[in-house]
Amino acid sequence: MGLNGNGIQHNTVKGIIYKSKQKSRRQRWNVRPSEMSINTLNPIRAIVDGMKLTPNPEKPMIALSIGDPTVFGNLPTDEKVLQALKDAIDSHKYNGYAPSVGYQKSRDVVANFYSCPEAPLEAEDVVLTSGCSQAIDLSITVLCNPGDNILIPCPGFSLYKTLAVSLGVQVKLYNLLPEKSWEIDLQHMESLIDDRTTCLIINNPSNPCGSVYSKEHLKNVLSVASKNCIPILADEIYGDMVFPGCKYQSMASLSSDVPILACGGLAKRWLVPGWRMGWILIHDRNQIFGKEIRQGLVKLSQRILGACTIVQGAIESILNDTPQEFYHRTINFLKSNSEICFSELSTVPGLTPVLPAGAMYLMVGIEMEHFPEFQNDVQFTERLVTEQSVFCLPATAFEYPNYFRIVVTVPEEMMVEACARIREFCQHHYRPCSQDSNELDQ
Amino acid sequence: MGLNGNGIQHNTVKGIIYKSKQKSRRQRWNVRPSEMSINTLNPIRAIVDGMKLTPNPEKPMIALSIGDPTVFGNLPTDEKVLQALKDAIDSHKYNGYAPSVGYQKSRDVVANFYSCPEAPLEAEDVVLTSGCSQAIDLSITVLCNPGDNILIPCPGFSLYKTLAVSLGVQVKLYNLLPEKSWEIDLQHMESLIDDRTTCLIINNPSNPCGSVYSKEHLKNVLSVASKNCIPILADEIYGDMVFPGCKYQSMASLSSDVPILACGGLAKRWLVPGWRMGWILIHDRNQIFGKEIRQGLVKLSQRILGACTIVQGAIESILNDTPQEFYHRTINFLKSNSEICFSELSTVPGLTPVLPAGAMYLMVGIEMEHFPEFQNDVQFTERLVTEQSVFCLPATAFEYPNYFRIVVTVPEEMMVEACARIREFCQHHYRPCSQDSNELDQ
Repeated sequence: MGLNGNGIQHNTVKGIIYKSKQKSRRQRWNVRPSEMSINTLNPIRAIVDGMKLTPNPEKPMIALSIGDPTVFGNLPTDEKVLQALKDAIDSHKYNGYAPSVGYQKSRDVVANFYSCPEAPLEAEDVVLTSGCSQAIDLSITVLCNPGDNILIPCPGFSLYKTLAVSLGVQVKLYNLLPEKSWEIDLQHMESLIDDRTTCLIINNPSNPCGSVYSKEHLKNVLSVASKNCIPILADEIYGDMVFPGCKYQSMASLSSDVPILACGGLAKRWLVPGWRMGWILIHDRNQIFGKEIRQGLVKLSQRILGACTIVQGAIESILNDTPQEFYHRTINFLKSNSEICFSELSTVPGLTPVLPAGAMYLMVGIEMEHFPEFQNDVQFTERLVTEQSVFCLPATAFEYPNYFRIVVTVPEEMMVEACARIREFCQHHYRPCSQDSNELDQ
Repeated sequence: MGLNGNGIQHNTVKGIIYKSKQKSRRQRWNVRPSEMSINTLNPIRAIVDGMKLTPNPEKPMIALSIGDPTVFGNLPTDEKVLQALKDAIDSHKYNGYAPSVGYQKSRDVVANFYSCPEAPLEAEDVVLTSGCSQAIDLSITVLCNPGDNILIPCPGFSLYKTLAVSLGVQVKLYNLLPEKSWEIDLQHMESLIDDRTTCLIINNPSNPCGSVYSKEHLKNVLSVASKNCIPILADEIYGDMVFPGCKYQSMASLSSDVPILACGGLAKRWLVPGWRMGWILIHDRNQIFGKEIRQGLVKLSQRILGACTIVQGAIESILNDTPQEFYHRTINFLKSNSEICFSELSTVPGLTPVLPAGAMYLMVGIEMEHFPEFQNDVQFTERLVTEQSVFCLPATAFEYPNYFRIVVTVPEEMMVEACARIREFCQHHYRPCSQDSNELDQ
């Protein structure tokens, strides 16, 4: 049954084999890290660690770079969420092993929470994971072999490439269009598809763009996937985190044929990213994934198991009892902070902020030709720290040079102060016309 | 800087390229699971799912098969452990992201807890993981490339092979000797080493054997590793879970040169396996791992991050404030249950139990020649369920046929009743001399 594949080796060892083997043993120590570990690259670390970040001692540091809504304490999770966790502890029911895909009851709760008439879900369609990162990891791993390629957004969350490349999977970047509120360049996306393309990653709402796609645009994305028979990995960790007046539509609710692995979790909407509670929602209307992909996910989930059982035990109350007021408060804060940031920066010479519609981010374009002192967004943001003690992540970290990303979860007064300093910085370095426009395209 | 490796693709798209690409696109749906998912095999599931397990309706089922100490409620964790978790929640300090290798403070606490003069540890030597499974996964992944091989114990915990094979790493099984309390057949182990052997896995105390190695034996293991220059992955998740009168020695405390990745966690000793709190302790006295292996582990830890931050926040109190009495109570119970089970079964015709010295398990040999009705341990344990409603895991699941494993964490009365039923079963099926001894070696 395959289990005894190594049986022979340990049953037929003879002295003669000892000798033959001895020859080839190592004579000295030479322990090398694996290719996979070497190929696990974190571009954000690679870039930030390479920057000289010495703040101006006269000004307190303001970090607009951290994609963690909890760092400043102004966006606490709801007390009911914390109480749910304590109740799970007191129940003494959630200390043992859960099934590798999660407790049936917890999967059922997640299924019910996200099920809709156009995209019904049952417990069997849910795999609970150790954070949305593992959800994305398992999804890429089940769909792709080394040598295959996946399509990912540019600018886009760096983890997709980190995971894919570490697995020997190639990534191809499809363009998002800032002038169209970061909609996908569908023609470009389709042009990248070849016969080794096994997965199309769509991140909506988007990190780093804060964009939210319209129903029509999502339908157009689906028709490209359908026409080319490519399954979709929908990273919807910011799902439902959209500003009033804008509607969020899940990819699966619009798909008639394209099979979708929708990844999500508690991290952002419930403001507890450290709890590592994520999930994969399997949408397979036409049995295109079929039993095999489901079984593949189950098998992969058995490698290291998934989310902490205490959090799994609390998930029912977290999803069903968290007051709507909590969600609204969070969203309203993010919207107001985004608007402050956008209106402030849109009058700053040389900057072109793009108004977000959801998530926690805002992208700002740098008209490099007006800042000849700096060769790129990395130098620009580096100097912004040196002079103004404000740190924004250069979008080169998202493979999108000459932009920087602002996280809008910081307290309002901090956002206002940061924008004022950015204005001062730009006014100081802005040049009406460029001296050496050639270098700027580097 | 490598980040723009795909830059060309998305900057130089032309209509002409669209056309050329279109040719190769898929014409119909054909989504297949990856090789890695197909190659992720769980032998326990494969065997148990293949068994016809229909208990005798007259007798309540007793499962001696589940390696989860919490299932029967007789081995609760300490209240201080639960309180530590609730305090971490109330502090509101542990909801955000932790560094991928864990909070510095939490790593420091683990380092201090396991540091000893012969094997000193600092925070930098600790990587916190999502359970001991991820610790083992990261350790194998950083040390092995596809095509390499690792040496694992037989009988042994099935996860080693599951993880290795899924990564394209070959496993070679070295024999443990039941007549020597499951000590390693060192000559056999060394005979398996070749120039592609990159890791030697030692599990002490052992699942499924419950064996605990002497200082001398561990030193002999280390000299084989040293002579052949093979680093050791020490799975010590049952470390310190040894019975009174027997001393547990960590592998690292005896190593003068062999670099060791020691894997452990809260699961067993603190009786909270579902919490998924594990760690890797990096012991590298002679800088053989050096910076590279450490950096490799850090990089791999960034793929999906590690343990739940609430548990990380509680670890200091869990390790430092849990009363000794709790550890003693657990160990004394396991020892007493093991002795009951051993003394009961050692007088059962046709069975040869091996007395454990630690952990939570006991292995029982089946003298198959005396049970001609059954071809192997799987058939034997299957029928034991049918007739006596007692389920023990056939050791074929550990690649060790004609034995079965008993988990000794069940309540005492349940253990006594189970042993009585096993005796009845064996007395019923025992045959003084075998009719067809030939078949039995199959």
